[in-house]
Amino acid sequence: MESVFEMEMMVRDYECDIQGIVNNAVYQHYLEHARHQFLHEIGLGFARMHEDGIDAVATRVEIDYKLTLRPRDVFVVKLGLRKQGRVRIVFDQTIVRKSDGRTVLDAQVTAVLTRNGRPIAPSLFDEAFASKGWKFE
Amino acid sequence: MESVFEMEMMVRDYECDIQGIVNNAVYQHYLEHARHQFLHEIGLGFARMHEDGIDAVATRVEIDYKLTLRPRDVFVVKLGLRKQGRVRIVFDQTIVRKSDGRTVLDAQVTAVLTRNGRPIAPSLFDEAFASKGWKFE
Amino acid sequence: MESVFEMEMMVRDYECDIQGIVNNAVYQHYLEHARHQFLHEIGLGFARMHEDGIDAVATRVEIDYKLTLRPRDVFVVKLGLRKQGRVRIVFDQTIVRKSDGRTVLDAQVTAVLTRNGRPIAPSLFDEAFASKGWKFE
Amino acid sequence: MESVFEMEMMVRDYECDIQGIVNNAVYQHYLEHARHQFLHEIGLGFARMHEDGIDAVATRVEIDYKLTLRPRDVFVVKLGLRKQGRVRIVFDQTIVRKSDGRTVLDAQVTAVLTRNGRPIAPSLFDEAFASKGWKFE
Repeated sequence: MESVFEMEMMVRDYECDIQGIVNNAVYQHYLEHARHQFLHEIGLGFARMHEDGIDAVATRVEIDYKLTLRPRDVFVVKLGLRKQGRVRIVFDQTIVRKSDGRTVLDAQVTAVLTRNGRPIAPSLFDEAFASKGWKFE
Repeated sequence: MESVFEMEMMVRDYECDIQGIVNNAVYQHYLEHARHQFLHEIGLGFARMHEDGIDAVATRVEIDYKLTLRPRDVFVVKLGLRKQGRVRIVFDQTIVRKSDGRTVLDAQVTAVLTRNGRPIAPSLFDEAFASKGWKFE
Repeated sequence: MESVFEMEMMVRDYECDIQGIVNNAVYQHYLEHARHQFLHEIGLGFARMHEDGIDAVATRVEIDYKLTLRPRDVFVVKLGLRKQGRVRIVFDQTIVRKSDGRTVLDAQVTAVLTRNGRPIAPSLFDEAFASKGWKFE
Repeated sequence: MESVFEMEMMVRDYECDIQGIVNNAVYQHYLEHARHQFLHEIGLGFARMHEDGIDAVATRVEIDYKLTLRPRDVFVVKLGLRKQGRVRIVFDQTIVRKSDGRTVLDAQVTAVLTRNGRPIAPSLFDEAFASKGWKFE
């Protein structure tokens, strides 16, 4: 995976459960937040798209958990993306613990854009990528 | 998948995001809650196992999202499980919308039991299953 | 406080934090869910009101925490309400642990209805209450 | 209130509900995270204290909500604290929206330290404060 975006976060205590580790579902929040930050940076804000009638909807999530994060751990979410077929976008995401560079999890999140509930081609992405001099394929 | 456990829940408003639908991460909470209810019913409570030094840790999650749930939707989480290799347990989980019986998502959650951070054979499951007259294989 | 609505819930494991108890913020979710259930029962659904341009907005929350809930505890949220001035509604809410009837917390949640961001008189409540033969004052 | 600690955060999309604004309960997470960051900075980490058998438990929360935060809003949580009686600590917390300096909410969170479930005098705080040259009173 070629990473086009990275962001750093820190585990907050309330994100941990009685095992003293980050709850599995919370990692999806981290992954989502990183995707939305990335989309915002390329001009495709989630809330604004929603107001325009366009929603990005995840259709499939695969996560391989390798390490658990604990309170106050600092980590980096890395993100790459590619097209799959005509309408699917696949985000390849990795979370890395900052203290030792070890992989916390690998994830693939497949999404489609919808307008009024129907899948549309992700041409918004082509344009946004072109404006950065990247290629989305 | 053969379902050995089912439970019904209702979407709470705070579980929905600005798209007006249940946030993707929340489904992992639903799936987790159903697994823990199931474990409790077969005598393997999550909190009690944790106190005994045994933790059930998810190593892989795959979710295919098919439909979105909305505020106040009633749904059923169905659960089957099987062994994979010597230490892995795979939970096959499906969420079905009650109003029309349509599948909301299909999930496979792979877990291992750990004692002091090291994987152990899930013999606890064999015993719990045997006590129900089921077979865990 | 005179209770006009009660609902029973059970603590889910993911709602507990590293202290092994329900996280403080989660109680606000319980209180909100009970208020929304109540509003739904009197014909004032939260999501539907939002679609009609009317939002119920909390302006003040006071919570006295007396006991902590733990995984799988069953509890009852009790709710009364009254007017305060021309636009404020005060919800008196109590959470009681079912096993022994002890009070977990007492809360007062003050809310206003807004249309397009501006407070409006809660006449919707008068009508809804009248239809139940109750008095909202 | 005299502020002894401030931290900046940004609203994440998943923290907003179907009204498009930050859910009320989420502000308690923001307030908690700021308190824990502060405690960490003065050497009183929440997770570490818990391992030592000492828990900080909130006994009362009062929040006056004045403005709502929206996706991507940047805000500052400010924190002061004082003793109340022999065992209570009161945190005075304010959340300010960064773009215009307006107050989002004012909160007072009363807490006690407990060891094995029983309140203890917050002498840990006296020592931590003394080491900073502050006075906790």
